[in-house]
Amino acid sequence: MNSECFGLAERLVDRTYVQQAHQAKQSLTNQIRTLLEHRKWPEEGWDEATVELVLRELALMDSNNFPGNCGVGEREARVASGLVDRRHFRLGHGIGRSGDISAIQPKAAGSSLLNRLANIFALDVIKLAGVRAAAACVLVPMATGMGIVLCLLTLRHQRPQAKYVLWPRIDQKSCFKAIKTAGFEAVVIENRLEGDELRTDLAAVEDKLQELGAENVLCVYSTTSCFAPRVPDRLEELAELCKKYDVPHVINNAYGVQSSKCMHLIQQACRVGRVDAFIQSTDKNFMVPVGGSIIAGPDERFIAEVSKMYPGRASASPSIDLFITLMSLGRSGYKKLLAERKEMFQYLSAELSRVAEEKGERLLKTPHNPISMAMSLSGSAAGHVGKDVTQLGAMLFTRCVSGTRVVAPGSDKDIAGHTFKNFGAHHDNYPCAYLTAAAAVGMTKTDVDLFIKRLGKVLGKAKSRSDEREAGCATADE
Amino acid sequence: MNSECFGLAERLVDRTYVQQAHQAKQSLTNQIRTLLEHRKWPEEGWDEATVELVLRELALMDSNNFPGNCGVGEREARVASGLVDRRHFRLGHGIGRSGDISAIQPKAAGSSLLNRLANIFALDVIKLAGVRAAAACVLVPMATGMGIVLCLLTLRHQRPQAKYVLWPRIDQKSCFKAIKTAGFEAVVIENRLEGDELRTDLAAVEDKLQELGAENVLCVYSTTSCFAPRVPDRLEELAELCKKYDVPHVINNAYGVQSSKCMHLIQQACRVGRVDAFIQSTDKNFMVPVGGSIIAGPDERFIAEVSKMYPGRASASPSIDLFITLMSLGRSGYKKLLAERKEMFQYLSAELSRVAEEKGERLLKTPHNPISMAMSLSGSAAGHVGKDVTQLGAMLFTRCVSGTRVVAPGSDKDIAGHTFKNFGAHHDNYPCAYLTAAAAVGMTKTDVDLFIKRLGKVLGKAKSRSDEREAGCATADE
Amino acid sequence: MNSECFGLAERLVDRTYVQQAHQAKQSLTNQIRTLLEHRKWPEEGWDEATVELVLRELALMDSNNFPGNCGVGEREARVASGLVDRRHFRLGHGIGRSGDISAIQPKAAGSSLLNRLANIFALDVIKLAGVRAAAACVLVPMATGMGIVLCLLTLRHQRPQAKYVLWPRIDQKSCFKAIKTAGFEAVVIENRLEGDELRTDLAAVEDKLQELGAENVLCVYSTTSCFAPRVPDRLEELAELCKKYDVPHVINNAYGVQSSKCMHLIQQACRVGRVDAFIQSTDKNFMVPVGGSIIAGPDERFIAEVSKMYPGRASASPSIDLFITLMSLGRSGYKKLLAERKEMFQYLSAELSRVAEEKGERLLKTPHNPISMAMSLSGSAAGHVGKDVTQLGAMLFTRCVSGTRVVAPGSDKDIAGHTFKNFGAHHDNYPCAYLTAAAAVGMTKTDVDLFIKRLGKVLGKAKSRSDEREAGCATADE
Amino acid sequence: MNSECFGLAERLVDRTYVQQAHQAKQSLTNQIRTLLEHRKWPEEGWDEATVELVLRELALMDSNNFPGNCGVGEREARVASGLVDRRHFRLGHGIGRSGDISAIQPKAAGSSLLNRLANIFALDVIKLAGVRAAAACVLVPMATGMGIVLCLLTLRHQRPQAKYVLWPRIDQKSCFKAIKTAGFEAVVIENRLEGDELRTDLAAVEDKLQELGAENVLCVYSTTSCFAPRVPDRLEELAELCKKYDVPHVINNAYGVQSSKCMHLIQQACRVGRVDAFIQSTDKNFMVPVGGSIIAGPDERFIAEVSKMYPGRASASPSIDLFITLMSLGRSGYKKLLAERKEMFQYLSAELSRVAEEKGERLLKTPHNPISMAMSLSGSAAGHVGKDVTQLGAMLFTRCVSGTRVVAPGSDKDIAGHTFKNFGAHHDNYPCAYLTAAAAVGMTKTDVDLFIKRLGKVLGKAKSRSDEREAGCATADE
Repeated sequence: MNSECFGLAERLVDRTYVQQAHQAKQSLTNQIRTLLEHRKWPEEGWDEATVELVLRELALMDSNNFPGNCGVGEREARVASGLVDRRHFRLGHGIGRSGDISAIQPKAAGSSLLNRLANIFALDVIKLAGVRAAAACVLVPMATGMGIVLCLLTLRHQRPQAKYVLWPRIDQKSCFKAIKTAGFEAVVIENRLEGDELRTDLAAVEDKLQELGAENVLCVYSTTSCFAPRVPDRLEELAELCKKYDVPHVINNAYGVQSSKCMHLIQQACRVGRVDAFIQSTDKNFMVPVGGSIIAGPDERFIAEVSKMYPGRASASPSIDLFITLMSLGRSGYKKLLAERKEMFQYLSAELSRVAEEKGERLLKTPHNPISMAMSLSGSAAGHVGKDVTQLGAMLFTRCVSGTRVVAPGSDKDIAGHTFKNFGAHHDNYPCAYLTAAAAVGMTKTDVDLFIKRLGKVLGKAKSRSDEREAGCATADE
Repeated sequence: MNSECFGLAERLVDRTYVQQAHQAKQSLTNQIRTLLEHRKWPEEGWDEATVELVLRELALMDSNNFPGNCGVGEREARVASGLVDRRHFRLGHGIGRSGDISAIQPKAAGSSLLNRLANIFALDVIKLAGVRAAAACVLVPMATGMGIVLCLLTLRHQRPQAKYVLWPRIDQKSCFKAIKTAGFEAVVIENRLEGDELRTDLAAVEDKLQELGAENVLCVYSTTSCFAPRVPDRLEELAELCKKYDVPHVINNAYGVQSSKCMHLIQQACRVGRVDAFIQSTDKNFMVPVGGSIIAGPDERFIAEVSKMYPGRASASPSIDLFITLMSLGRSGYKKLLAERKEMFQYLSAELSRVAEEKGERLLKTPHNPISMAMSLSGSAAGHVGKDVTQLGAMLFTRCVSGTRVVAPGSDKDIAGHTFKNFGAHHDNYPCAYLTAAAAVGMTKTDVDLFIKRLGKVLGKAKSRSDEREAGCATADE
Repeated sequence: MNSECFGLAERLVDRTYVQQAHQAKQSLTNQIRTLLEHRKWPEEGWDEATVELVLRELALMDSNNFPGNCGVGEREARVASGLVDRRHFRLGHGIGRSGDISAIQPKAAGSSLLNRLANIFALDVIKLAGVRAAAACVLVPMATGMGIVLCLLTLRHQRPQAKYVLWPRIDQKSCFKAIKTAGFEAVVIENRLEGDELRTDLAAVEDKLQELGAENVLCVYSTTSCFAPRVPDRLEELAELCKKYDVPHVINNAYGVQSSKCMHLIQQACRVGRVDAFIQSTDKNFMVPVGGSIIAGPDERFIAEVSKMYPGRASASPSIDLFITLMSLGRSGYKKLLAERKEMFQYLSAELSRVAEEKGERLLKTPHNPISMAMSLSGSAAGHVGKDVTQLGAMLFTRCVSGTRVVAPGSDKDIAGHTFKNFGAHHDNYPCAYLTAAAAVGMTKTDVDLFIKRLGKVLGKAKSRSDEREAGCATADE
Repeated sequence: MNSECFGLAERLVDRTYVQQAHQAKQSLTNQIRTLLEHRKWPEEGWDEATVELVLRELALMDSNNFPGNCGVGEREARVASGLVDRRHFRLGHGIGRSGDISAIQPKAAGSSLLNRLANIFALDVIKLAGVRAAAACVLVPMATGMGIVLCLLTLRHQRPQAKYVLWPRIDQKSCFKAIKTAGFEAVVIENRLEGDELRTDLAAVEDKLQELGAENVLCVYSTTSCFAPRVPDRLEELAELCKKYDVPHVINNAYGVQSSKCMHLIQQACRVGRVDAFIQSTDKNFMVPVGGSIIAGPDERFIAEVSKMYPGRASASPSIDLFITLMSLGRSGYKKLLAERKEMFQYLSAELSRVAEEKGERLLKTPHNPISMAMSLSGSAAGHVGKDVTQLGAMLFTRCVSGTRVVAPGSDKDIAGHTFKNFGAHHDNYPCAYLTAAAAVGMTKTDVDLFIKRLGKVLGKAKSRSDEREAGCATADE
């Protein structure tokens, strides 16, 4: 409704009331105008109704929603199911075009605008979270693993002869598979055990660079966020090595945006050495459904190249989800979430430490890991549970505790041709079995309390395994 | 509500009525049971309310929706925005796991089940549409171009030394870029002009295979659906060549599922020669938003390998959209859509032919193209429009006709290092300029009528370009 | 988004595309402007997305949705549940004010505007459906029965000494109860049996008017839509009587809008005699959920008085439902529905007649009833079913046929102090038992076919009642 | 999905995961079972997804949602618009039947069940809030005023000769109009000024009872919640009078449920004297959209009679809204809301008192009013604003403060034949002008702070009225 409409409404409803409504509408329009003018992630979150209104305004900008539009192409964003159409806010054209995922679509100005804004906000959030050196980013509708593949494929064009990816070991299958999928050979750098922590073996990295010849190395592929007792890689030193040997550097920052420590590491790495791209998951950091990742970096040109590697259009869903979420939270809302996560990390550490001591175990000392932590299962707990501590994970899962991992020595694994000794432990010979837990963004005190309670029970009752017949989550705490 | 609940309801509401409600519920449950038992795409579509109910039942199977669940992992499908959560029916975990996009997720039995069903239905639809030889398929949350990249990356593992992809020219940027993105060298096979049609130069393909050495060729990468006057490739003969030279064969079937002719070509190719995979877009064939494609093939093992190439989790959105749409349509609904498309193709041909003749032009004879058609702009139309016929497309677009393409000689284009002469024409020297239009699934008679009306006007008024000031779609037809 | 916003969007997305989007938006705004300017029910229906957009624009005009509003009253349309808020499109203030259900609310210009438009459309629809004499109407959030109460209460203020309501018998409990609820004494006028039909006994009405004294009669309260074999009252003659004796006339037109015959009767009555108000249900005529009725009449002043009788605010839900439905249908859509109903009436008559004859029964001849029809159950059918034909209704209901009524002699009923002989039959001594069915708006051919099939079966199998064990609708047709 | 379905799902997804999902489903089903078994408002609120699931289960119990149902009646809950159908969760049949709004509908077991539960919860909430004497209640889809009309109409049947309603003055139009609408003569009992408060003149009530003859009095109609400086009526004493004279007693408790004081008054009145019914608004007490009220009382029979007075079906919307809201809040959530309201009342009193003193005014002493309060506008404020303090309300409204009322002597009003001196003041000669504000349930600290800030500004700037040009809420606080 424009001024004319409000004027006409005055014939049906008292003028004063309509005028006030008009003012309210103008103030809303101003809000949108300001957004488009400043193109910045808003400080305060917008309420859900307003965000939805913006989505509807954007949808009206796409040709499939034009009144009187007729489509005679092969791709006209016709949607058969009303249920599907509504869930996408009638934004059917996706994002990207002709081999550039950031390109504007002629038929879909609204979807394109939404995608632009989502990318702008994404860069804002990366900077806010600590990597001020970030110069550009691209939000892709692929999870982290595939996002890394895209980076590696882009690097191939720069270094057509390079065959190797140097990769400090991190025992998550998809991280490793990304290298294989992109068609490269992974050179696994084993971690060093320092106290309880597993840390980057910098010397081994440099040795490999020299041994293989830097020109044959596509990149060093390091990791921040990971399960304790592994800790984030020594990014600063790796970045310096990459700079020294002129080798690209790609960082898997899967769920690191939520941690100021991880982001600080990347910022430092950008400052002192070489970083080409760092990739983060949207679901893990921004509480949206699985499906998107943000590829960011200190050099606009490289990010533009990555963006141009994507052949054709792609799902707008992750952009829509991130747009809604960041608009709804605002900077202040996201900062609050990050602060709460930090508190939960402290609380979970304290509680897990307490339970560990009660059961004759201990929290491993992994001060460099800001998200994940591990409790030993070396001695008594193992006794409690029976021979096989690995069952502990299943027992917890049956009691509706999701997300713990129990790692015990002994399980080698062959992945895409490479054999990992003691896969899961990030190390061939980690001294003890352990259980991990993580304080990720969105975790609540209730989560921690329920976990600690159920863990205590599971460890406590282990002697009498026979009498076990638990049924489901709701009864797990009786 | 189970039997017990219905029993208890009888204390509040008359027994007879509750019992009848119970029966109705049971008949609904039977419907779901039958679906799970037979695991087949239903003949008749389900109504929207029932489909939504199934989605909600599936969501309840995911751990993030368990009553009393507590999450202590880094990925717990926590969703910050209610708006986002609702639009995904609270299915937040995505699909796939640890480097296999078809793998079951422990935390998300519901999402996994949905994905399985969507894949089963996808295979059913491919068979129904004509490729009975299809043995397996995988629905990936990436549009066609990236789906092809995934196939090429998978083939690299089989043929590590192969460098070339043989590609009968089709002037769509993303088709070509897929080869580059995957890291291969495209060998462009120019099309032969046969009458008005542009067809596969089989001899040139075989020459190249011999020249380069079959072992150095990653695959032949052919195309079905395309803009007239190019027509679908000679798939049968290409498949025979591939078989003969033991070279993989990947087919871009972007919007070919909607055409029985395209599907028949693939079926024949599978029968007589070699086909490794054919890839189709979900949005173009099934009227869902952009974002997914189906990679299918006659050999289960190859499709399984493709599926295992995807590193990590991925968006469930395209699976959800396809699931809803296929459930809502049913086989009969989809068959109806296909039949309507065929009719619209005839109608559009007749109408376009009529207008062409009125304006001193003609419909190009491209009997092998079952979806797209082209009208010449060689003579008078060009005169009408002025020197530059290419403006015709923009004039139509301004009048809310989306999807036409005007191709005129003269525009060379450099894409990822390769120079295409007269890009857009699929040929270095196509004899005339032309305008294309397509009868794609979902097109209505109104679409055709509006298009023809507006086209007639635009061609008619071209002489008096100066007086032009049109405003928007709604007024386009006054 | 206003022009300025679109201008700013051009910095993010190509100018041409944004301009086209802007034009599309303007054409939408024009649509709304035209609506507000002409204040007429649109000829063509609007699509769902646009109707929803209008609702959202209206919601923004209510103070509870103003950005920065603060409420310090006792009624601020705060809504606790998001689910509730969304289902009302954030329109929480209801309609009406301080004892006038049509009054504008200062805090809710949007809700008020919506209500105005809904009332305007309602009057348009009444006229379109045949009562051109209607001068005003008010849409009330009460079903027909309570709407009639409101009319009777309004009449009391005009005729404080009147005690009686003259009411040609119609055996629907709520029609009769409306009189009692309003505090009056019902004078039941028994129907005359004419052929198979039950028709108004005009002489008895006039006798009663004279006997009781016209000044003691609050009104004559007649009925159009009713179950066969009763037929609509002789409205024209009743209206003439009312005019002659200066007695108000209230017509229960519950589901008569869908029938041109019923509407014609009212139109004639208005033309030749006295009609104060006629009341119609929104659910039965416009396919919305139960809850609203439209009180219309040829005299604006009386309708205004009725509207002012409602003390305080009221639910906006029925207004919202009617607004959405009429906007979505448009005049042409509603006319189409009415035409389809007429066809279905013919089809149902023919089919029911056929089945009746097969079973040795007959369709009663009730040419004056345009919606409902009845099939005799006098002879053989009764034999089929067993002693008690009334079980037939239950048998059909168990087979998911809803809406039939079986009427057999013998069931007297005491309602609010009055004893009705053979309640349900509209008559003390109707000659036979019968089953009724109705062709109401929205009925489909499938409805008729399923009904006829199941009726045939139920009548057919009646002899072997013992072997009966049917389970639910889905299996009813096996 | 039942056990069988889960069993079949195991063929598609790993058994363990399906079993856990099954357990989760069972625990949800148990939750519903428990609800139906105990039929009590739950202590803890249910999450939105679960509440919505329950609504969908209920909808499946209505015949319009039965698979294979065919309708041949005049009322089959067919819904034309998908948008309308979805917003009612496909519950189209409404509530009530044949002249009893609490009756079960054969075609709508689900709607009936929902309505029963909503009524059960409503009684629970009334008891929880303090009136343990409540024996029954009925939730009606009419706002408070019309609810009172229904009570008065019901009483007429008990006391056919009674003409008068004794009504301690409360200056809200709809309260007074309810008497007129029901067809009775209002006997206005003027309030007594006690300190700043306006309180019930018990002696005047008793005088009138004697003067008119108790048998001619339909009822005493008292009020709890009201705008200060009027305070809730002396219910205990009025109830005793009603008992003594055997006169019914109806209490308007519009927004009194939120105040323990109001509820305590009613509880005491029930205990020591006569109360027939007390009526409360659903929107004002439970934060749902306008449209429903709860009629409660200590005698089941009277409430049943009221329920049977409603002729025919009615909208289910208010029942749905209350059901969702009470299910979502749970007892604990509602108690929390009430506690917060109490705090806000204290906070608003303190802040308003502070501002009043700064401006040379004072908060009136009205300790008996637990919700509304008033600040004098006698001296300086009036000076500030100019001659006419009544403009203050408009000035605040323009600044997006909704809900204040400014009352100044001098505005007489004729309502339905009765002239009220100084209407709005509840008194013929209240000594000063004043402004009221209320701390109602759902008010936030932000509401109070914004109000106080804007009030301060408006009072402060009054001298320079000329320079006034404020635009809307968003800029109101700059």
